[in-house]
Amino acid sequence: MRKISFPLIALNFKTYAQAFGENALRLAKIAEEVSDQFGVTIAVAPPIIDLARVAAEVEIPVFAQHVDPYEPGSHTGSIIAEDVKAAGAVGSLVNHSEHRLKLADIGMVLKRLKENKLISLLCTDTVETAKAGAALSPDILAIEPPELIGTGIPVSKAKPEVVRGAVHAVQKINPDVHVLCGAGISTGDDVARAIELGAEGVLLASAYVKAKDPKMVLIGMAREALRGWEKRI
Amino acid sequence: MRKISFPLIALNFKTYAQAFGENALRLAKIAEEVSDQFGVTIAVAPPIIDLARVAAEVEIPVFAQHVDPYEPGSHTGSIIAEDVKAAGAVGSLVNHSEHRLKLADIGMVLKRLKENKLISLLCTDTVETAKAGAALSPDILAIEPPELIGTGIPVSKAKPEVVRGAVHAVQKINPDVHVLCGAGISTGDDVARAIELGAEGVLLASAYVKAKDPKMVLIGMAREALRGWEKRI
Amino acid sequence: MRKISFPLIALNFKTYAQAFGENALRLAKIAEEVSDQFGVTIAVAPPIIDLARVAAEVEIPVFAQHVDPYEPGSHTGSIIAEDVKAAGAVGSLVNHSEHRLKLADIGMVLKRLKENKLISLLCTDTVETAKAGAALSPDILAIEPPELIGTGIPVSKAKPEVVRGAVHAVQKINPDVHVLCGAGISTGDDVARAIELGAEGVLLASAYVKAKDPKMVLIGMAREALRGWEKRI
Amino acid sequence: MRKISFPLIALNFKTYAQAFGENALRLAKIAEEVSDQFGVTIAVAPPIIDLARVAAEVEIPVFAQHVDPYEPGSHTGSIIAEDVKAAGAVGSLVNHSEHRLKLADIGMVLKRLKENKLISLLCTDTVETAKAGAALSPDILAIEPPELIGTGIPVSKAKPEVVRGAVHAVQKINPDVHVLCGAGISTGDDVARAIELGAEGVLLASAYVKAKDPKMVLIGMAREALRGWEKRI
Repeated sequence: MRKISFPLIALNFKTYAQAFGENALRLAKIAEEVSDQFGVTIAVAPPIIDLARVAAEVEIPVFAQHVDPYEPGSHTGSIIAEDVKAAGAVGSLVNHSEHRLKLADIGMVLKRLKENKLISLLCTDTVETAKAGAALSPDILAIEPPELIGTGIPVSKAKPEVVRGAVHAVQKINPDVHVLCGAGISTGDDVARAIELGAEGVLLASAYVKAKDPKMVLIGMAREALRGWEKRI
Repeated sequence: MRKISFPLIALNFKTYAQAFGENALRLAKIAEEVSDQFGVTIAVAPPIIDLARVAAEVEIPVFAQHVDPYEPGSHTGSIIAEDVKAAGAVGSLVNHSEHRLKLADIGMVLKRLKENKLISLLCTDTVETAKAGAALSPDILAIEPPELIGTGIPVSKAKPEVVRGAVHAVQKINPDVHVLCGAGISTGDDVARAIELGAEGVLLASAYVKAKDPKMVLIGMAREALRGWEKRI
Repeated sequence: MRKISFPLIALNFKTYAQAFGENALRLAKIAEEVSDQFGVTIAVAPPIIDLARVAAEVEIPVFAQHVDPYEPGSHTGSIIAEDVKAAGAVGSLVNHSEHRLKLADIGMVLKRLKENKLISLLCTDTVETAKAGAALSPDILAIEPPELIGTGIPVSKAKPEVVRGAVHAVQKINPDVHVLCGAGISTGDDVARAIELGAEGVLLASAYVKAKDPKMVLIGMAREALRGWEKRI
Repeated sequence: MRKISFPLIALNFKTYAQAFGENALRLAKIAEEVSDQFGVTIAVAPPIIDLARVAAEVEIPVFAQHVDPYEPGSHTGSIIAEDVKAAGAVGSLVNHSEHRLKLADIGMVLKRLKENKLISLLCTDTVETAKAGAALSPDILAIEPPELIGTGIPVSKAKPEVVRGAVHAVQKINPDVHVLCGAGISTGDDVARAIELGAEGVLLASAYVKAKDPKMVLIGMAREALRGWEKRI
């Protein structure tokens, strides 16, 4: 598994009108630039259709948005870990709130990612399910209260107890799991606050993808991520 | 929550041809008789359609086979915890291998059961997902390798390491969770072996429901459950 | 298959707080009274858990809210047509907007209902899918634009072209299929308008279940259904 | 919408070990060669991850294996029609037996494909659901009894009545829909028989993808497709 360093800013492009095809590449390139400039790890998760091309053209870590719990075989319209690997991705989101999985399938997807030396970034919605997630030993776990996703109300300010609770609960069950937080993260300040609460980074989408000036937004986040991280150490 | 004592023999009637309508009642009555005779707790999970009637006519604990993750409201064809409670059931199976749920929904179902003082019996398929399940604090957790379900090859003999592994892993994460095992449990001997491995009981279906003489099968299981339990203490 | 006469007022109780347990029975009894008084067919679809009891205590047609596409067998937490029949129901809703099914499963559910001489009431959302539905030969088809469900904005007034379009399209593909309309139906006037547009009845939920005086609401609907029907003939 | 001519041989690569990454390209190139040589339309549906690259490197029609029923937006891990179009595909399989969709979603996917001038190839399992499918006006409909998929037992020989029945039923409901058949199609002879029964082509997977010599298999199919087609005219 390729190593990822923290703090981590993970950008989910979803399938926004601003983020597929040529735009996926453009947004990934901006992320690469900002990552290089600030020395902060920035990962991107472009739409599935654009995964291979984006992975071929940037040096930053590229994640799939989803992988199916299958071995290669008789599965039509599915995404297998082997092909995600072949496409040049380093990992995958798992169980995003817009692509929830059955518990048994999460177990299987994590196994499939591990077998292919891909990094797993498991999303969960509550402190309770974050505990369950930690017990499954993903590489990274993101806590995202779904009611805040896409709202611009940052979890790190609106629900600090959820972030702190998840960080604490995950550490207790499996201290090797890195914890991010997400939902409503919109500014550098939200990122700084997340890191202050114990998160090792953030997962976000619309604030970057739909920004008038995505680069400016990301620069603010990278700068504050670093500042917050230094304070913590 | 009504208390349940252990060892526990939990009988899932599924929707077998031998187990719905009048037969659901007949099989529940037999279970009640054997439970009374041996002083072993035997719980039954009849088909949803028969739940209320069975719960009205037997004194043993009756479980729903499934509950949906919803509050009462605009949900057609769903099963809400409040109605399961009103029907006289004491709890529900959750995430059976034939009715797998999303992780987030399992979290919600467990919450809904708790709010209604109903016992949760969470099914999982591997030691890994059993850990995740334990982190969600169900009342009871059953480990059932799906490849053995309905085969007559007992998990307690074919995969003792899975039963022992699950018991151990669950105790480590949440010692309050009672662990059952299931899949292929067919005889009193299989039950005794399960208890010897650390399980506090068994979950089974076809071996009881499809038996020529269900009473005889259940008597064998009740007797061995007791014997195994005494040895353990 | 038990015959149902038209116009038909079909009441979906969903799993509303006002409609399960004792309330399911109470609401069904009121429907029975109004049906007797006006000679209009009124069918009720209580929550699954309450199906058997309601069917045992009223003479009007009782429908399940959902049936699974399975034969009796190894299916946990499922609803099989045989058990719905044994419970005394005369039919089932299929593919309600809150319980959408795969096309292949709709095909199977309709087959399973037919084999058990149960009436199928298939819900669809658009004129296009109503055509597809008609091609599957259900006994009754309800067209319900989901964006109006539960709004109180009646489909028969807000989208008359959808009702008329569905009636026309269904007749062309399969003239034996009876067409209802639903979504937002709240008053006798909405019912009259639906029948005027060619529907043979209505499917509704909240306007009855959540009414302060359900009986009064239903009387208004029964009266206008008759009046509309007579005009049509 | 780009035009497709018939007879059509549609090759579903699924996510077979032999068909992703570099192999997807290799298999698509062979199909292009055979198509050029015989003047028969051969379409390929590579794994989603490989779609863009395959579409960029071959001239034959490339299909997605699946498209989601969404507009561009907040959907993680999904496949939107706009992106499939941008990737250079000309259409998509819909509702393959390994990726069954809800009826309402099929309606929406067909609409999304049409809006993006993409060809829809709708799969159905029985004559009944083929009728329903035809009512939804896809460009192409494939009838594939799932019990024969991957068996090597050709539908055109084992169930000629299903092929003939589907062709007849579809023509009656919507004569503009082209009908293919699939499941077990393994040899040129199976293709010839399919065309003789009224199909305008075939949909197949393993017989091509897993063949020792895929080119040889495809040549046999292309030759017999032409021969059968000439006889028919």
